[in-house]
Amino acid sequence: MTDNTHTSLQVEKKFFTFAEPPDEMVLDSGARLGPITLAYETLGTLNEDKSNGVLILHACSGDSHVAGYYSGEDKRPGWWDSMVGPGKPVDTNRYFVICSNILGSCMGTTGPTSVNPKTGKPYGFDFPMVTIKDMVKAQKHLMDHLGIDKIMSMMGGSVGGMQVLRWCVDYPEMVRSAIPIATTTRHSAQAIAFNEVARQAIMTDPNWRGGNYYDGQGPDHGLAVARMIGHVTYLSDDSMRSKFGRRLQNRSTLSYDFNGDFEVESYLRHQGSKFVARFDANSLLYITKASDYFDLERGDGNLLVNDKLAGVRFLVISFSSDWLYPTYQSKAIVAALKKNGSDVSFCEIDARWGHDAFLMPNVQMDKIISGFLDRISREC
Amino acid sequence: MTDNTHTSLQVEKKFFTFAEPPDEMVLDSGARLGPITLAYETLGTLNEDKSNGVLILHACSGDSHVAGYYSGEDKRPGWWDSMVGPGKPVDTNRYFVICSNILGSCMGTTGPTSVNPKTGKPYGFDFPMVTIKDMVKAQKHLMDHLGIDKIMSMMGGSVGGMQVLRWCVDYPEMVRSAIPIATTTRHSAQAIAFNEVARQAIMTDPNWRGGNYYDGQGPDHGLAVARMIGHVTYLSDDSMRSKFGRRLQNRSTLSYDFNGDFEVESYLRHQGSKFVARFDANSLLYITKASDYFDLERGDGNLLVNDKLAGVRFLVISFSSDWLYPTYQSKAIVAALKKNGSDVSFCEIDARWGHDAFLMPNVQMDKIISGFLDRISREC
Repeated sequence: MTDNTHTSLQVEKKFFTFAEPPDEMVLDSGARLGPITLAYETLGTLNEDKSNGVLILHACSGDSHVAGYYSGEDKRPGWWDSMVGPGKPVDTNRYFVICSNILGSCMGTTGPTSVNPKTGKPYGFDFPMVTIKDMVKAQKHLMDHLGIDKIMSMMGGSVGGMQVLRWCVDYPEMVRSAIPIATTTRHSAQAIAFNEVARQAIMTDPNWRGGNYYDGQGPDHGLAVARMIGHVTYLSDDSMRSKFGRRLQNRSTLSYDFNGDFEVESYLRHQGSKFVARFDANSLLYITKASDYFDLERGDGNLLVNDKLAGVRFLVISFSSDWLYPTYQSKAIVAALKKNGSDVSFCEIDARWGHDAFLMPNVQMDKIISGFLDRISREC
Repeated sequence: MTDNTHTSLQVEKKFFTFAEPPDEMVLDSGARLGPITLAYETLGTLNEDKSNGVLILHACSGDSHVAGYYSGEDKRPGWWDSMVGPGKPVDTNRYFVICSNILGSCMGTTGPTSVNPKTGKPYGFDFPMVTIKDMVKAQKHLMDHLGIDKIMSMMGGSVGGMQVLRWCVDYPEMVRSAIPIATTTRHSAQAIAFNEVARQAIMTDPNWRGGNYYDGQGPDHGLAVARMIGHVTYLSDDSMRSKFGRRLQNRSTLSYDFNGDFEVESYLRHQGSKFVARFDANSLLYITKASDYFDLERGDGNLLVNDKLAGVRFLVISFSSDWLYPTYQSKAIVAALKKNGSDVSFCEIDARWGHDAFLMPNVQMDKIISGFLDRISREC
């Protein structure tokens, strides 16, 4: 990977299948699942002492395709192409980047759309509940498979940030540094509420049929509504005013009907339809539930307060207009980590794009991540 | 009305039917509707010179039952019983209170559930689009009917506040004072977005059937989801954390299923079901659309900037944690009105309950509204 042009980075999706003995992985719930396949992609080259690995953890509806192109025919590169690539903040000329699709998703990794070996049919709603801990446990198997026992850095926003924190809690000895972005130690009541409304939109769609809809029409309407809800929470009042305001869509006067007058209505409908074409409704149910379950403070104190994390270097990032994972939640992460005597940097980036800001090109974020990784790599 | 106990205020729902010649009212859209019936309630006694009228404008899913009880069997009083009644801030021992159900609603006033005189069947989706201006125009007919040509004060929160502002714009000579609460001069892109998602939840429910569902099962699931979305926007991150946090509902451990683990999930589901039992899905569509259309700044400048409003006394109220109609939107109302040289008081009340705060008992709000009305009434 010495190509320095940003647009010609070619990647391929790979698959790794594993099973804990005899053939299943024990999940957080106590249920068993297996064998498990993880779809993943890598960019750059793993160095000889395997010390330059950077693990990217994706958010709710993301996938392993973090950057680059599969082929010249792709219209768009991976979802974080502004961040990852040759000469970019996560510089694939220097680092070996790994991104795997999360457990429960529908982008190549085992999830509700996968075939249940016991029935020969898609799992559907027989898929067991998976948690962020389970997603991370599966990724640990992938790291073992790649022979990486110390990850130089890991980073991710939103549900990806939850995985970063869970990695640090469960396998602190494997993590040299971590960048949790726009995330939280525990899903708030408001965030659970929005997820629950999205789930109800799906589960009350008659085509959901108890989650076993793969032989016919799926709950497309419910899934579209669920995605629309999500989208509003990813933006901010300010960004929506600036992006759409009250501009009308393809008309100069009000329609006095229900076909959608405003640009923001068309945008949301379009986002809903687009999502239905690429994502599975059950996967959204499972992944939103996993994020709702995420709580590092349940039970015996805050799991981030642990001497074993003292050696991990942290860069915690939040965005000023993110009201889904507001800055006070990132500050709670920082406060907990400081108790370990950890080296923790924190930055609230002034950005108007709401929660979505972590996915948008941002010079300030680029600079601090690039600098942070550079320091870590020189200390290795 | 000399009864001073707060719990025994008895009211009754009344109906007023009118028609502009020949038998219809011309709507904002140019369409015609009629005859129109308004359900309304009054409390207190209109004084001899008809100068003590206080008009209460209700929000989206409210009704004419602002305070008191219909009978001793009622479990609860009207929706703003903490504000309106004998000895309360809007003191029915002193003021004559009127509250009418808005046009397009389903609580007694003409709306999509009403019988279309042309077909003998409910209007359903043949009901014409109505706007905040139309709602106010219908209320003007009621004021004429009651013989009130100068309203001492009018007040309302949210969509009720929009009506307050529209009253001032359209009939400034009839308004002595006005209290717009937790409202805006124009619905924001974010507020439109949430409404549009709610509408899509209803309109994609197969039982909606193009809006003509009154002969069978209605879009109950879609309506419940729509209400759940609304509810999340009426609360705040802070209030949800304080009210629910991550407490589990009737269980001590996670269920690892989709039946609802958290109190906030149960609460939302309950709110959804309760709403389905009392409100009509089409009415929600029409009223949300009317609020989305609300824009006093479209076209030729801000309609609040008008010399004719100079004589109206204003008290503008917002709430610190209201993110649906944030304080900056109330400040925009104040800024526009000040240009007329109007007497404008403004108060941002520090309250954690989000947009819902305007409906909750609040000592500070009680005090400023009570004082404001007292001053106005003494100046009459």
